[in-house]
Amino acid sequence: MLLPSEFVEALRAVVGAEFVRTDSASRETYGTDGMKRGRPADVVVLPDGVDQVSAILKLCSTHRVPVVPRGAGTGYTGGAVPLHGGVVLSLERMNRILEIDEENLVVVVEPNVITGTIQDAVERVGLFYPPDPASLRLSVIGGNVAECAGGPRAFKYGTTKQYVLGLQAVLPNGDIIDTGGKVVKNVVGYDLTHLLVGSEGTLAVITRIILRLVPKPPVQSTLRATFATIADATRAVSNVIKARVIPASLELIDGDSLDAVATYLKARSLAPAGTGALLLLEVDGLSESVVEEAARCEQACRDAGATEVLRARDDAEREAIWQVRRELSPALKTITPIKFNHDVVVPKGRIPQLFEFVERLKRDYRLRIPCFGHAGDGNIHVNIMVTPGDDDEMRRAHEAERLLFEGVVALEGSISGEHGIGFTKAKYLSLELDPPTIEIMKAVKRAFDPLGILNPGKIFPQ
Amino acid sequence: MLLPSEFVEALRAVVGAEFVRTDSASRETYGTDGMKRGRPADVVVLPDGVDQVSAILKLCSTHRVPVVPRGAGTGYTGGAVPLHGGVVLSLERMNRILEIDEENLVVVVEPNVITGTIQDAVERVGLFYPPDPASLRLSVIGGNVAECAGGPRAFKYGTTKQYVLGLQAVLPNGDIIDTGGKVVKNVVGYDLTHLLVGSEGTLAVITRIILRLVPKPPVQSTLRATFATIADATRAVSNVIKARVIPASLELIDGDSLDAVATYLKARSLAPAGTGALLLLEVDGLSESVVEEAARCEQACRDAGATEVLRARDDAEREAIWQVRRELSPALKTITPIKFNHDVVVPKGRIPQLFEFVERLKRDYRLRIPCFGHAGDGNIHVNIMVTPGDDDEMRRAHEAERLLFEGVVALEGSISGEHGIGFTKAKYLSLELDPPTIEIMKAVKRAFDPLGILNPGKIFPQ
Repeated sequence: MLLPSEFVEALRAVVGAEFVRTDSASRETYGTDGMKRGRPADVVVLPDGVDQVSAILKLCSTHRVPVVPRGAGTGYTGGAVPLHGGVVLSLERMNRILEIDEENLVVVVEPNVITGTIQDAVERVGLFYPPDPASLRLSVIGGNVAECAGGPRAFKYGTTKQYVLGLQAVLPNGDIIDTGGKVVKNVVGYDLTHLLVGSEGTLAVITRIILRLVPKPPVQSTLRATFATIADATRAVSNVIKARVIPASLELIDGDSLDAVATYLKARSLAPAGTGALLLLEVDGLSESVVEEAARCEQACRDAGATEVLRARDDAEREAIWQVRRELSPALKTITPIKFNHDVVVPKGRIPQLFEFVERLKRDYRLRIPCFGHAGDGNIHVNIMVTPGDDDEMRRAHEAERLLFEGVVALEGSISGEHGIGFTKAKYLSLELDPPTIEIMKAVKRAFDPLGILNPGKIFPQ
Repeated sequence: MLLPSEFVEALRAVVGAEFVRTDSASRETYGTDGMKRGRPADVVVLPDGVDQVSAILKLCSTHRVPVVPRGAGTGYTGGAVPLHGGVVLSLERMNRILEIDEENLVVVVEPNVITGTIQDAVERVGLFYPPDPASLRLSVIGGNVAECAGGPRAFKYGTTKQYVLGLQAVLPNGDIIDTGGKVVKNVVGYDLTHLLVGSEGTLAVITRIILRLVPKPPVQSTLRATFATIADATRAVSNVIKARVIPASLELIDGDSLDAVATYLKARSLAPAGTGALLLLEVDGLSESVVEEAARCEQACRDAGATEVLRARDDAEREAIWQVRRELSPALKTITPIKFNHDVVVPKGRIPQLFEFVERLKRDYRLRIPCFGHAGDGNIHVNIMVTPGDDDEMRRAHEAERLLFEGVVALEGSISGEHGIGFTKAKYLSLELDPPTIEIMKAVKRAFDPLGILNPGKIFPQ
């Protein structure tokens, strides 16, 4: 879109000329995200501080210019991509840890601190910020909050949502609001904090975040169990829960994904022959309970017919167990560079049905679909692989994608547990939500953004 | 208000004549709540099922009749009281536990199941619903959700909010919406579930609730520690946190409250002479960790100068320790029958400052203000006692009340951690929330309830 020159001048007056970028390299760079699909911005603005963010949003309201807030741009569903041109408002200069309040187990941060940096800082004083999306060394806390990021530790510790106590945010009209605070209980008015968490930058621009921390668990124990079938592995998960253990991590990797990692790592094999599923279990806490819980996990796996259970005896062995999990994403790219990485969720007892369904899709649509994910949450990453240039496979992949989402909803699941809707899943929203529920969500959107200037084209089908 | 006779007839057609009450006894009974203050309803309707609730709300919309949803009516801030007449919609017939899904750690209930009944039912299969408001044998889960009830176990386990996975609810226009579901992760669209939790019946009428459960902790250990001063007790709380222990309960009772319980129980004394504060600590989990955590708690209290630390050796001793906490509410009534029971919250490190502030109020306003509460959360029940008929004391109490709220906000706290705003605290809302934050909350209210018929007069100052 053509922006009025007085609008761009006014942006420069707010943040300084050096922080308003209109060169084509910047417009391209800030127009894409972790999905590598995007459209160029018209102008990129880099404010520092809530007052500058407020002034920018006021200008965008006055001139009816779309504005897309952006953190690290690592999202998988296009949340930070400007579909309708206009302004990309990058929060990259607002990257300070403002306060670590040890007494009250709270950290206050600006939105563009890398999540792993927060974790390191609080762990140095014996505290712990549990959410650990795979991107934690790349993504920033503002993006994690906007998308409600998850990760392997969510089973025991919950997702980002469970740690956000309060927010400062700027409405599309420039008004600055403060929600929640440093207290862990607060029932004064509506819970806007948790309405903004996961709202994908469509309701307000988050400028400050108050996070709850917990004491750092002193001890971990890590196990790897292999199984002939997904069904056996899922039975082990049920056994763990029946044994009243809540592991910090309970990750499931299927045979296809394991093969890909073996190829990637140039290892002959990472598990006994005939392994159809691998579970990675980690318990944490005080050493007394960790020993007991690890023993219960081991028993739970053996009772489900595990072909092998290894328990890490030191950090090096723990590292080796985790390496397989961590290399999954690059490893899948050795199969083929295009993957539709879907973060579907089902009630955890229905994981076997989900895998049966995926087996059918593989067969019926002749597709490679390695799966892995967070078994404790029922949150499985289903990766539909496509060879570049193979139009027929691409078509089959799209058909399978829709069937996958329909199948997940039929299993009382959700089409997204971690990545959000962005624009890539917007057309599937109505598979999961009925019309009145979508309508009231749109009414909430209008309440926050009556002009429709904030991150337009996201979440709701166009 | 005078209701059109065709409106009342239409209500009868929806639910059956026997479930529409217009007699004055019903109108009075359903016009008050746990606060014992209220105004009569014009008509009381008792629907069974979501379709009847939807039909009633459609009728109320068509006729522009105010409608107040009601659970057990045990609230402390008037949330279920009809300020503007009209319909009281009592959900008392919708009181079934629909499903206990052991595999997925989920229970599905109608809104009017008593919370303690849910706890009993899930504990019979080894599961656990942690939130435990003092009213748990009286209040119902729908009311707990509408108000976001807390309780002593919130420090470790969180409040009601942390357990609600999904809701079915009816909008003021009669539309039925479904939010969330049985899955623990869901980032599809806005988080309406947690917007409705704590919305005090002003946005929608909740008709079905999906709750997350956890494994029942097999073992508890309960301690009672006494201190000369509140400051010592608070130091013990800090020590517990520094020792990296999160007790399930961490309750603080001040000397005045203890004296009241002693009087009520006709005991000469419940603690060593000179006790200014009592801490009740309970840890739970696997037996291995419980022993270790209890030892750490005991040491933390001794290091803070505890005058005595008792550890319950059996259930009878545990019961005796808890009795003091449980009898607080009736015991305070022996001081005088009128109390302003305020559930303020401060960051827990600031509890000593809160108590210093209350001491000043006691002195300056010549008031009796016993305090007790959830020290782990910084959530303290501040009870301003007033003798019936003493108008001057009443006036001083109201002045002290406002100063208390101002003081709490100055300490970065919140004026309500458990009871909500209802109508009794509406005039204080702006002490805590700034105008833009209140305005956007009102816009959310209008998005859900454009005609303003649902529970009018609550939360927002009139």
